[in-house]
Amino acid sequence: MKLATLRNARPDGQLVVVSADLARYVSAGRIASHLQAALDDWDQAAPALAALSAQLDAGEIAGQFFDPALAHAPLPRAYQWIDGSGYMSHLERVRSLKGSKDEELQSVRPLIYQGGSDSLSAPMDPIVIPSDDLALDFEAEAGVIIGPVPMRASREQAQAAIRLVTILNDVSLRKLVVDDLQNGFGFFHAKPSTSFAPIVITPDSLGDAWRDNRLHLPVRVEVNGTIYGQPNAGIGMHFDFADLIVEAARTRPLAAGTIIGGGTVSNPHDETLPIKRDGIGFACIAEARTAEKAKYGRARTPFLKPGDRIRVGAIGPAGQSLFGDIDQAVELLASD
Amino acid sequence: MKLATLRNARPDGQLVVVSADLARYVSAGRIASHLQAALDDWDQAAPALAALSAQLDAGEIAGQFFDPALAHAPLPRAYQWIDGSGYMSHLERVRSLKGSKDEELQSVRPLIYQGGSDSLSAPMDPIVIPSDDLALDFEAEAGVIIGPVPMRASREQAQAAIRLVTILNDVSLRKLVVDDLQNGFGFFHAKPSTSFAPIVITPDSLGDAWRDNRLHLPVRVEVNGTIYGQPNAGIGMHFDFADLIVEAARTRPLAAGTIIGGGTVSNPHDETLPIKRDGIGFACIAEARTAEKAKYGRARTPFLKPGDRIRVGAIGPAGQSLFGDIDQAVELLASD
Repeated sequence: MKLATLRNARPDGQLVVVSADLARYVSAGRIASHLQAALDDWDQAAPALAALSAQLDAGEIAGQFFDPALAHAPLPRAYQWIDGSGYMSHLERVRSLKGSKDEELQSVRPLIYQGGSDSLSAPMDPIVIPSDDLALDFEAEAGVIIGPVPMRASREQAQAAIRLVTILNDVSLRKLVVDDLQNGFGFFHAKPSTSFAPIVITPDSLGDAWRDNRLHLPVRVEVNGTIYGQPNAGIGMHFDFADLIVEAARTRPLAAGTIIGGGTVSNPHDETLPIKRDGIGFACIAEARTAEKAKYGRARTPFLKPGDRIRVGAIGPAGQSLFGDIDQAVELLASD
Repeated sequence: MKLATLRNARPDGQLVVVSADLARYVSAGRIASHLQAALDDWDQAAPALAALSAQLDAGEIAGQFFDPALAHAPLPRAYQWIDGSGYMSHLERVRSLKGSKDEELQSVRPLIYQGGSDSLSAPMDPIVIPSDDLALDFEAEAGVIIGPVPMRASREQAQAAIRLVTILNDVSLRKLVVDDLQNGFGFFHAKPSTSFAPIVITPDSLGDAWRDNRLHLPVRVEVNGTIYGQPNAGIGMHFDFADLIVEAARTRPLAAGTIIGGGTVSNPHDETLPIKRDGIGFACIAEARTAEKAKYGRARTPFLKPGDRIRVGAIGPAGQSLFGDIDQAVELLASD
């Protein structure tokens, strides 16, 4: 089944069930007022939501027109957002930019960090930046929303806790990354609000696209209407989502509604931008710049600036945007 | 007014108003079902809660016996928990232990990190550790819970957003601190669930103990019934809570219900443990060990082990524990 959160007067929005083709929705208010409430009571809520979804898809419920412009992030605020780094080729490409040491490149245990989860961005919210000299980048990722996981969980427990799959943009201010990491306390200012696609999907509704705890779909990124990358999230993901959950639960339990990001999707290749329609490309600017430096001696691709537009979506077997698109314009924060 | 959250069948617990002497409580369910709901609607909720508090304190409402053993953390789960480092003497004492560089000692801008907020510990919950060789430490702190703060907020906006004050224990696994920081992605495994005192208090109800955006009270720490430290949270706090909020909002807004910690309370002095009843001592073990190393050539004070008990509370003018006590026993996670 496919779920979304529509804006209403409340901070958590309204939970709705969306038809498989994303054309129509029906309120899930009878079952759970918002997505976190459904996750808190998943064993009760999930079967009822699935039944509603089946009725909607069978046409037994007409539903209403689904407009992604009215969608919030599926969880407009979450109790936890943890981003992992599942793709080795992303780490290899960006580690020099991060001012990080070679030893950080770990293939034994995934790197994860605690992100801010109090205000997650809707798919069509602008990306508001405090100034235009912070090297604004995107990181297109697959992510999962989980149920409760005990401390020191097994891979089996981790896998069983995966409730929903989605697509996100881990907005990054590259100029602040080095500062944040050199302070020694980790990412903070370099990672403002993360943006989410409008739709979350249960793993069982993804069919063959969800297997081995990975999303096996290309994640397509466009900048100002031009294709930038379409790496496959199922390729090169050295640490799968079960690995990331196990790592996150090493010293503490994880609560229902925790969001785990898989890291910037990244496939190994030698391309630089612009890519052809059948190229792989990149899911963040930092990687493109590193590849350009290696090939041309200097980075060519600029970071995002006010007025730019970034679009991210996972492409289904029929070419459709399976989770709906993240489609954001960059805006400078208005001065007082 | 004083508020607390009592356990019920729901993850957010039940909001109650507690009498000034912490003896009695009355349900605030008519006004807000839980504390986050009150924070979401503070302009409406706060006057109603204050009126209920006045009735309770005047004896117009009998109320029920308040048992801190039934209290949750005021926010059992929060959308954001940010810990700052307001006290320079804490940073000076522990920086060698953290494997951090001298340059990290910043007096210009506070260090802050993003903590996990999905499962915050109740005042009398056990501290459950996955193994007994992780150098378990406590960090006694003052903290605030805030209303919404815009990106790039002014000090005035930050100050005006402070809704509630509390006391917390930033539980730390020292052995994992160096690993976390050397990974370059910041604290994660070294910072399991943070624990909270049962009571939150509005700044105006703290009288003279709240001024200059600081809590001017000794924070008393006892380990296994022996006094360990009672540094004053108002002394040596180089960055006040408005500074910490301004810093946290540099590149992003902060949502209602964000918790900000002031950092391990730490006063400059040359004592080592054990301290006399009128000594200052320490609010974490790491500082005590550093002082011992400097004086004796080696650290004497052990880290916490299973069976140990840690008690933390802020001491009011009449010697009372103003926010109630954090009083936790250390337990080893049961094996499967």
